[in-house]
Amino acid sequence: MIKLAAPAPPEAVESIAAIGRFASARGWVPATSGNFSCRIDARTIAITRSGVDKGDLGAADIAALDLDGTLPPGLSAETPLHVARYRADRGVGAIVHVHTVAATVLSRMHLADGVIAMAGFEMQKALQGVTTHLGEVALPIFANAQDTDELAARIEARLGAAPAVPAYLLAGHGLYAWGQTMSDARRHLEGIEFLLTCALEERRLGR
Amino acid sequence: MIKLAAPAPPEAVESIAAIGRFASARGWVPATSGNFSCRIDARTIAITRSGVDKGDLGAADIAALDLDGTLPPGLSAETPLHVARYRADRGVGAIVHVHTVAATVLSRMHLADGVIAMAGFEMQKALQGVTTHLGEVALPIFANAQDTDELAARIEARLGAAPAVPAYLLAGHGLYAWGQTMSDARRHLEGIEFLLTCALEERRLGR
Amino acid sequence: MIKLAAPAPPEAVESIAAIGRFASARGWVPATSGNFSCRIDARTIAITRSGVDKGDLGAADIAALDLDGTLPPGLSAETPLHVARYRADRGVGAIVHVHTVAATVLSRMHLADGVIAMAGFEMQKALQGVTTHLGEVALPIFANAQDTDELAARIEARLGAAPAVPAYLLAGHGLYAWGQTMSDARRHLEGIEFLLTCALEERRLGR
Amino acid sequence: MIKLAAPAPPEAVESIAAIGRFASARGWVPATSGNFSCRIDARTIAITRSGVDKGDLGAADIAALDLDGTLPPGLSAETPLHVARYRADRGVGAIVHVHTVAATVLSRMHLADGVIAMAGFEMQKALQGVTTHLGEVALPIFANAQDTDELAARIEARLGAAPAVPAYLLAGHGLYAWGQTMSDARRHLEGIEFLLTCALEERRLGR
Repeated sequence: MIKLAAPAPPEAVESIAAIGRFASARGWVPATSGNFSCRIDARTIAITRSGVDKGDLGAADIAALDLDGTLPPGLSAETPLHVARYRADRGVGAIVHVHTVAATVLSRMHLADGVIAMAGFEMQKALQGVTTHLGEVALPIFANAQDTDELAARIEARLGAAPAVPAYLLAGHGLYAWGQTMSDARRHLEGIEFLLTCALEERRLGR
Repeated sequence: MIKLAAPAPPEAVESIAAIGRFASARGWVPATSGNFSCRIDARTIAITRSGVDKGDLGAADIAALDLDGTLPPGLSAETPLHVARYRADRGVGAIVHVHTVAATVLSRMHLADGVIAMAGFEMQKALQGVTTHLGEVALPIFANAQDTDELAARIEARLGAAPAVPAYLLAGHGLYAWGQTMSDARRHLEGIEFLLTCALEERRLGR
Repeated sequence: MIKLAAPAPPEAVESIAAIGRFASARGWVPATSGNFSCRIDARTIAITRSGVDKGDLGAADIAALDLDGTLPPGLSAETPLHVARYRADRGVGAIVHVHTVAATVLSRMHLADGVIAMAGFEMQKALQGVTTHLGEVALPIFANAQDTDELAARIEARLGAAPAVPAYLLAGHGLYAWGQTMSDARRHLEGIEFLLTCALEERRLGR
Repeated sequence: MIKLAAPAPPEAVESIAAIGRFASARGWVPATSGNFSCRIDARTIAITRSGVDKGDLGAADIAALDLDGTLPPGLSAETPLHVARYRADRGVGAIVHVHTVAATVLSRMHLADGVIAMAGFEMQKALQGVTTHLGEVALPIFANAQDTDELAARIEARLGAAPAVPAYLLAGHGLYAWGQTMSDARRHLEGIEFLLTCALEERRLGR
């Protein structure tokens, strides 16, 4: 049974509050959207509650959560997407989810493809393990769903044990990214969002 | 007779000044445009005066107003649009009005339709009572007018007792949104503006 | 003979420094571009020097200038455009000049027309004396030139004694706006820039 | 042999930290991208280390470097591009490198041309020695490469002793700009980025 382990440690609260302020300043978490989490230990994470402004998070807005239990009330409906990622990969230390215009529009445009591929950008090297612009970043796209347990299972089944790209899109919804640390997750978030913005611009130009 | 009940309570002033700072930082109230109000009690509201920078509001810029009287001088010409909404629905606690590029351009583009419809966006859930992305948000569009008494009557006649969406567009003018609290009104404002920005982007792409 | 009347009064310095900070925060004065001035009295103005960051102006960056003399060194090459406006209209109390993308691109696109016309926008009411969205704002466009004395004469000859719109564009260069006070000039600047941004967006959409 | 001369002088650290904060606020160094340097003396420069957020640089993030030696570990892989510029031109006092959407997209679009030409913009005068909008700014574009020693040699061979424009693009990568001082380099950066943004907008409009 998952229990709400209150409260989250101060360093987890500050790490999550900082990424929330960053994302809010960029306009990436409008209307109390988005959610953020980080790993506390092998079986516990800290995660944002639902319905709060992510640009102004405090200790009361962030809950500690047992990865092996059932979900307590008050958390985001998307908590299962976080939990599934942490369970699938012990190397995941932080997960960020934002709603950007580029992620939303491109994920709708390319949903039938199941992926958006980007190649030839130096920014691809922002992703852990990528050392050249010559490869291709293939960002998976999943159909959105309100049953997030089912959605999480569908996502993890496709991602498998070693996802090539530390991020995915939910169609018409937004971007998930992760990393070993919050710094890694933020770098992946910024890098992917930059790539998507360039890709969107190229589609505006009809290229 | 509507009297100017001076001054507005400090908590109403702060609530309105805060949303003004937020909207100004986003560039949504250029050239002293926009106006904001909140309910004080069943028959009284606080509302911004005309011609002031909405990013730097103080007590002198916000008036208390009796909903059952006539309008005092110095208020925005759009005050009747606020008053009509508060009168039509006792559940409305706050109303926000901004001028954004997306709202202005899309409202001109779709005026003949009388509505802009958006579907399949997770952000639709920012609107009170919406629990899935699968439905459609049909945002009403009204022709702009300088006779705001007539305009208010026209708007309320169409909105009816229970508007499906807590917002509307004035063509070539801007966006009105409301909610039970100022937090709700702001969430609706941010959510609708995000949806409009995505809709505009999709039209840029010819989709 | 125009003499450099040093220094400008503190209230003129603060007024100009404040509009400089505002324009810089919006990204409207890149690369030390833009210049700002205000009237001190019937025959004297305060104006920014050349080559300084307009987001960080101090007293040393702003000179007092006699409108009836010749120009001292160190001022912007565009100072004659300011001087000519103040001389032509005793009601002009402040002039602002910025470089925005919308002003630059649209002024190139419509140079052959000599004007860009905008109609049906509520924001037109940001301009002094405009009371309805039903009219048309016809913003003059002039070919750019490095001989700013000749350019100023050409501009004033066309504007005449009572310009309908308190602003003009220099093709491929930027926007000039003015008003009775600095607040009026800023409102005109923000209003025109918003209208131009909408006009540009409509051209992106092929409308 | 290039040795790491630790630490960089405080004024070099502050100059680089300031341009980093500026670029970060503009969103031009996402995902720890970008790098910045300035000359300390004829044979020494200060340059940012790799993998740090350029919006929050401190003394530990900036190394002093001997131009005549070999590169120490921990520096950006792009350090040779900086070193080559300083070696080629003793008048270069600062170099800035950023990742912007306009630079990235246009450099990919025009790579086959080897150049992007911009003419008729007043902003061209932001570049040192340019006194009129009537000429043409021909910004070189180079194919991106991960072997930055080879890339630096290729770039310097084409730029020659007296480059006409103090900047170049790396395709799909970003913008390099330089100047005699950090202020000059920043003005060139802002001016070129503005020109590229206008050029991109004109391509969106199909012009």
